[in-house]
Amino acid sequence: MLIKKACRLGGCVRSFVLTRPAHLSFSSSNMAKSKFEYVRNFETDDTCLRNCYIVVRLDGRNFHKFAEQHKFTKPNDNRALGLMTRSARSVIEELEDVVIAYGQSDEFSFVFKRTSNWFKRRASKFMTHVASQFSSSYVFYWKEFFGEQPLLYPPGFDGRVVLYPSNRNLRDYLSWRQADCHINNLYNTVFWTLVQKGGLTTAQADERLKGTLAADKNEILFSEFGINYNNESALHRKGTTLIWEKRDETVTKRMKVPNQEEKDMAVTRSRKRVEAYHCDIIGEQFWEDHPDILEDDN
Amino acid sequence: MLIKKACRLGGCVRSFVLTRPAHLSFSSSNMAKSKFEYVRNFETDDTCLRNCYIVVRLDGRNFHKFAEQHKFTKPNDNRALGLMTRSARSVIEELEDVVIAYGQSDEFSFVFKRTSNWFKRRASKFMTHVASQFSSSYVFYWKEFFGEQPLLYPPGFDGRVVLYPSNRNLRDYLSWRQADCHINNLYNTVFWTLVQKGGLTTAQADERLKGTLAADKNEILFSEFGINYNNESALHRKGTTLIWEKRDETVTKRMKVPNQEEKDMAVTRSRKRVEAYHCDIIGEQFWEDHPDILEDDN
Amino acid sequence: MLIKKACRLGGCVRSFVLTRPAHLSFSSSNMAKSKFEYVRNFETDDTCLRNCYIVVRLDGRNFHKFAEQHKFTKPNDNRALGLMTRSARSVIEELEDVVIAYGQSDEFSFVFKRTSNWFKRRASKFMTHVASQFSSSYVFYWKEFFGEQPLLYPPGFDGRVVLYPSNRNLRDYLSWRQADCHINNLYNTVFWTLVQKGGLTTAQADERLKGTLAADKNEILFSEFGINYNNESALHRKGTTLIWEKRDETVTKRMKVPNQEEKDMAVTRSRKRVEAYHCDIIGEQFWEDHPDILEDDN
Amino acid sequence: MLIKKACRLGGCVRSFVLTRPAHLSFSSSNMAKSKFEYVRNFETDDTCLRNCYIVVRLDGRNFHKFAEQHKFTKPNDNRALGLMTRSARSVIEELEDVVIAYGQSDEFSFVFKRTSNWFKRRASKFMTHVASQFSSSYVFYWKEFFGEQPLLYPPGFDGRVVLYPSNRNLRDYLSWRQADCHINNLYNTVFWTLVQKGGLTTAQADERLKGTLAADKNEILFSEFGINYNNESALHRKGTTLIWEKRDETVTKRMKVPNQEEKDMAVTRSRKRVEAYHCDIIGEQFWEDHPDILEDDN
Repeated sequence: MLIKKACRLGGCVRSFVLTRPAHLSFSSSNMAKSKFEYVRNFETDDTCLRNCYIVVRLDGRNFHKFAEQHKFTKPNDNRALGLMTRSARSVIEELEDVVIAYGQSDEFSFVFKRTSNWFKRRASKFMTHVASQFSSSYVFYWKEFFGEQPLLYPPGFDGRVVLYPSNRNLRDYLSWRQADCHINNLYNTVFWTLVQKGGLTTAQADERLKGTLAADKNEILFSEFGINYNNESALHRKGTTLIWEKRDETVTKRMKVPNQEEKDMAVTRSRKRVEAYHCDIIGEQFWEDHPDILEDDN
Repeated sequence: MLIKKACRLGGCVRSFVLTRPAHLSFSSSNMAKSKFEYVRNFETDDTCLRNCYIVVRLDGRNFHKFAEQHKFTKPNDNRALGLMTRSARSVIEELEDVVIAYGQSDEFSFVFKRTSNWFKRRASKFMTHVASQFSSSYVFYWKEFFGEQPLLYPPGFDGRVVLYPSNRNLRDYLSWRQADCHINNLYNTVFWTLVQKGGLTTAQADERLKGTLAADKNEILFSEFGINYNNESALHRKGTTLIWEKRDETVTKRMKVPNQEEKDMAVTRSRKRVEAYHCDIIGEQFWEDHPDILEDDN
Repeated sequence: MLIKKACRLGGCVRSFVLTRPAHLSFSSSNMAKSKFEYVRNFETDDTCLRNCYIVVRLDGRNFHKFAEQHKFTKPNDNRALGLMTRSARSVIEELEDVVIAYGQSDEFSFVFKRTSNWFKRRASKFMTHVASQFSSSYVFYWKEFFGEQPLLYPPGFDGRVVLYPSNRNLRDYLSWRQADCHINNLYNTVFWTLVQKGGLTTAQADERLKGTLAADKNEILFSEFGINYNNESALHRKGTTLIWEKRDETVTKRMKVPNQEEKDMAVTRSRKRVEAYHCDIIGEQFWEDHPDILEDDN
Repeated sequence: MLIKKACRLGGCVRSFVLTRPAHLSFSSSNMAKSKFEYVRNFETDDTCLRNCYIVVRLDGRNFHKFAEQHKFTKPNDNRALGLMTRSARSVIEELEDVVIAYGQSDEFSFVFKRTSNWFKRRASKFMTHVASQFSSSYVFYWKEFFGEQPLLYPPGFDGRVVLYPSNRNLRDYLSWRQADCHINNLYNTVFWTLVQKGGLTTAQADERLKGTLAADKNEILFSEFGINYNNESALHRKGTTLIWEKRDETVTKRMKVPNQEEKDMAVTRSRKRVEAYHCDIIGEQFWEDHPDILEDDN
């Protein structure tokens, strides 16, 4: 075939025949590839068990140091929390089948619906897509929250997949994360109040809080600093819950009505968008208010 | 304990007794958390088999569209390839135990040493850390490669973990990826030459290449456009291989020598850094030149 | 230490000093073992997801041939079915946490309760214990069902573990197996009736049944042989369901009553034992009659 | 179709029309099955990583008690060891791709060749087939070793799968088991010698051996009882290794030679059979003598 083609080209071919590429090696490249292709069989199947909620939780890598280097305010930095939530929103909007997400501090959990068949339920697809989309968004939206303060280096987040077979298990998972938010935020609030308003060193504040219960910490805030913890920011106390919600939107649209001139008309349409809540998700109220998040156990 | 503390505050307490936080609920928050903590037992162990190379391969998500929207040049965009390599370098430098990485087009593979015990060899840690670090780096370093051309949205990459028990299997994996690079790049080179220089539509170019072998494609390039494929950029033909290398560095250091004045001295030290190659990694040469990449099978 | 001990033995030792064991090699055997013990780390964790029913299904290996060689009657051999059930009973009684088992033909499924923590829920323990206990029982109880007809060789059964997250899923699994029993038994009943009573060859019977629906098969039985399939043995049509049941048992016990002579007294006590059913388990009735088999979804 | 068929039967049909089976329910049984069949998707893939040795290790369940009840002699019962080996031989002969097996006490390990593709390398198939075949054989061959002493109940064995990526790892696994055999057998030999010949109670023997090293135990045997441990039975000290070996067999066969009468001729043919060894498998010798057991690492 090579010769036949060369013939069509006439005499000019001859002059650089000697530098002609080694066709033989090329014609066998597909063969070479197929010879190596057996390595695909080393991939293992990591399909998630059906009828279970798929939860991906991300955690910031070395975020203690990251927070220091970027001068996050203590005990909470609203810019950082806003950026986390913005990145989570990007995950929910770009990927499929997330029904609820919950975040606090440097972590965020994404819950995929139990009947999801996204990427055939392969665990690696779920966790890497979430980790990737969240991380690229974090850098992409940094400026929206930190303005001119530069991001010093690309941050990292690790992820894991956990399956929950029932609504009760899933709600207990989310409750576990919100209880963790509460415990940490109460501690941090008292700790930094003792330091920032009470004039204690961090070592002293640490010492002071050793062995205290939640009630003790509330009491310190209340009696010594006049702070009622319950009046602190819900964002800090409760973390951020993101869900899809249908909202009616009224938009003005220029329309052509038969036998009339074109004119502006108000059109109402229902649109799904991601909404943020900073409320209790441990009790029943939230779930009664949003009955569509969870599917029935069956 | 509450009452005792309240007593210390005297009469002023009374006035806001009614708004006092509900201590009971708080004192039980730790208890609440431990009640939910059973959900941790739903996490499964995904430890990678010992004595196997752990490979994480990333692939761009919807990169065909991403390339269009960001006007990547065809068939290869050196800015985009440079950014991929820069991001891969960030992964290798930030994470542990990567011994070699290989990338082409919108994919990159990272090979962790077979004896690695990083994060106890948990597969989810490996793949999410790689996906996250790569993705945040891609956005972070975008400007270095694309200058003022804006990144339109945060891109995504998915990842997977594959284990290879032997050096032969690992090398065949890398050969598979490089053979894939070759096949795709040869096709793309001819295709876009037919379009850009030959004046064919993309549909015509596609039709022209149907059923052709590598030799045919080389012949088209050679006889119709005077292009010897072998002289095309090695970056495009061979992809990018990243490895750690020890290099001697000579730095000038101001030193205090005993009984003398401080003075500038040339100091040579060995430093490990990530080096890029665009060469064949299917044959023996590369591996003979870098005998430290692979550990012996045993 | 060797020498000190040898000294205690006096002169007689000398004579066989040369044949004395090589103590050095022995004293290092523990060390040797610990040197190899790293291989334990190659074992992987195969814990079953919590809050899911663990189902182990066994299937006879090459039972078509086994049935021929042991002259099982067609289409069903009650001795063989009895032996399967006896072996299943042994599994349920010897192992822990089986709540229901269902068998038909040469297969048996064992359902472990969803909250079971037997062997820390390790899948390999569940499936190998079941396969082993069933197989040894099959040989052990052979004579009870086949009398003097000898077992020609040790039979094999393979097993697998499947998890079901909800009661609905579990019931659908059991329904699937019972529907399979029905389809196979109806086919086999007609097939062997055509052969045994209708005088067809097996090839002719096979041809006759090609493309027939259940209604057609019933009609053949009914109109050609006067057989109402519904009146056939429930054991064959429905398979065998084994569950634990509490039964009151009245036993006579010789007791010593205070201030009286010892005498025989009737004592009633509740005892759990495995009971067999040959009934429909697809509909609601069976589950309403035995509400304790399944735990609530939560 | 039902009606058409009924017509062919004439008037007699009518009389039992009322007892005719409910065809509707039957005609939908295939549909019913397919409705439930989704439960198959809950099965997970447990394919073993390619190019690794697949090891299945079995352990007797409650064999301490089993040994007592069946009056096994101490410290070793040759009938019981023989039965274990007979059952292992049955596993090797019935299943595919076992290249070596090693047993001691109430455990047996089976090594499948690294390139095996038996049952697509599904771990559950390997471990349940081994557990089942071994267990049924144990009961089946009981009488060959225990004669008229009855087996009191069907015994159980559990199993697990472990993968080894290299020859070194596999040999270290087998060494680990043989070192375990040595340690246990040395201990048991001394212990029961102290009891049976030394007149100690088991508690005294236990106390006497506390903290002793291998050298100490050898010394006790040697100096107090004149026993050189090295001269003890190799079966007990080294366990049992089973491998396939080619042996030339000469058989007499009646053959028809052209133009001659039929006559008996000696025919030599090579036949593979399972051979047992009781030798060291930790050192190099055994492996040099049997170079075909292991495949090269590549």
